[in-house]
Amino acid sequence: MTLGEFDIIEHFFKKQPIMRDDVILGPGDDCALVEIPPNQQLAITMDTLVAGVHFPHTTCAYDIGYKSLAVNLSDLAAMGATPAWVTCALTLPHADETWLTDFSRGFFTLAATHNVQLIGGDLTRGPLSITVTAHGFVSKHHAVKRSGAKPGDLIYVTNTLGDAALGLLILNKKISSSPDNEKNVLTHLNRPEPQIDIGKKLLPLAHAMIDISDGLAADLGHLLKASNVGAIIYVDKIPLSPALQQIPAEQAISLALNGGDDYELCFTLPKEKQNQLKNLSQLTCIGEITAAQTFNLYYQDGKKYYTPTHGYQHFSG
Amino acid sequence: MTLGEFDIIEHFFKKQPIMRDDVILGPGDDCALVEIPPNQQLAITMDTLVAGVHFPHTTCAYDIGYKSLAVNLSDLAAMGATPAWVTCALTLPHADETWLTDFSRGFFTLAATHNVQLIGGDLTRGPLSITVTAHGFVSKHHAVKRSGAKPGDLIYVTNTLGDAALGLLILNKKISSSPDNEKNVLTHLNRPEPQIDIGKKLLPLAHAMIDISDGLAADLGHLLKASNVGAIIYVDKIPLSPALQQIPAEQAISLALNGGDDYELCFTLPKEKQNQLKNLSQLTCIGEITAAQTFNLYYQDGKKYYTPTHGYQHFSG
Repeated sequence: MTLGEFDIIEHFFKKQPIMRDDVILGPGDDCALVEIPPNQQLAITMDTLVAGVHFPHTTCAYDIGYKSLAVNLSDLAAMGATPAWVTCALTLPHADETWLTDFSRGFFTLAATHNVQLIGGDLTRGPLSITVTAHGFVSKHHAVKRSGAKPGDLIYVTNTLGDAALGLLILNKKISSSPDNEKNVLTHLNRPEPQIDIGKKLLPLAHAMIDISDGLAADLGHLLKASNVGAIIYVDKIPLSPALQQIPAEQAISLALNGGDDYELCFTLPKEKQNQLKNLSQLTCIGEITAAQTFNLYYQDGKKYYTPTHGYQHFSG
Repeated sequence: MTLGEFDIIEHFFKKQPIMRDDVILGPGDDCALVEIPPNQQLAITMDTLVAGVHFPHTTCAYDIGYKSLAVNLSDLAAMGATPAWVTCALTLPHADETWLTDFSRGFFTLAATHNVQLIGGDLTRGPLSITVTAHGFVSKHHAVKRSGAKPGDLIYVTNTLGDAALGLLILNKKISSSPDNEKNVLTHLNRPEPQIDIGKKLLPLAHAMIDISDGLAADLGHLLKASNVGAIIYVDKIPLSPALQQIPAEQAISLALNGGDDYELCFTLPKEKQNQLKNLSQLTCIGEITAAQTFNLYYQDGKKYYTPTHGYQHFSG
């Protein structure tokens, strides 16, 4: 049987785990219709994953479905927003039932975790790529922007960094590790966990926040630029997973600073609010915001760290 | 100079003609932040254009920018919605300054016409494709859906149909016409006009509405299915432009019924509201909704019309 466009939408994307009350009209009309609660602003983000650029061609459909949603929810997390609805534009070279079943399972598994409903999208033929637009709520005037960092703020990151980058090296047979470590870092690479809960808890606390998608150095750089401040980071304070701790320290730091695809949060916090983080686990202070608009990387013993690269940019020379 | 991802966003997409008061935070953070007026629902739609599938590889960048926005605004028009904000995910094989200048000019020219602000998006490397998500407002409980058609309703379309399909035939040297006609149908193909104003005026009048993107036969078919009704259409009532009137009648009707890319509106109207269309030009009644769930095509002299195809579906066999 050859599946048509409308069969695919009907079969794989209309039945879904989450049906929200604020969705007045879901997929199947010219537009979806939704309602926003009073006193809330809408946070909107859009990210594309292209096969061979953002994930290897060998990535399984479940992981592609999962990750295409995860990277967008991660942007909502970085504003402190609560996810609500998404649209998904799926471009496929051909209609493959098994692939579509697995893709939609990955997508909807993560959607269910965060109470997110798919409200529309598009299905087209072409080279494999997925674009998701995600919508979330945030109380008026409370979103955590990139631009709010103040001199003296402490700089924190969530969980550990560099795992996805190590996963990619392992996938490309550039390095090897124990089976357990390999499994963990590949999970980081293929099924990143958007830090929605911690993002919401940081809403009343953080001065500025960003999600780390292009590498800590690059993304913290954006935050500093938006805030017109600088920073001192102690590279040997950056939290590393057991897998990262087992490779040479210089390489581990480089992956944690410059590797992409972490989808952890980096945020700044006024010192007096530090004790309010007590009940939040998996946070590590790695440095401090400075008035001088320079970005300085040191070891804790005072030695300067020289970074060779500055994160991933599409089209950079 | 090699342009980086952030240079491109800064240079081509941050300066734009429309800056709306309801955009609290535009491009450049993890999310955009927007506010919805009270008592309005949000209409959301998303469409992708892939090079070589939705437009020929030879299409100029200005037209690609224009059309990628137009097809999405057309979906808002079909709900009777007022456009507000869009996000744009642009996937490009390489960064070309001239191409980007022209693309953004086409995009922003149409955006300015409809008071639309670009609030975010993504820029990635890969085979050329553009996905736009468009957001508009519609008063609570007033959106015109596909599912509201009632037996006895009159069926109308806006302007003329089949021009874009004829334009594609001309582009592919399958047919030729006068220079004026060729210019007009190519404009229809490359710069379709989203019928926003007429869509808003039909909001209190129409029972059901859809935009014609895959051909009248296919899209009216969706409307009939969603409404659980049938229709009689008189194929020689379908409005044709001078260019279509100059090709054989059978071919003209076939293009008007089955050709894609019209981006006109098809709507149904209770007979008693017919006189309220008086001040609206460019509307043509082409048939009537029936209780019997069949889709019948006739000539006005009573002869049956047999349609060979049923509009464009991606992945159809």
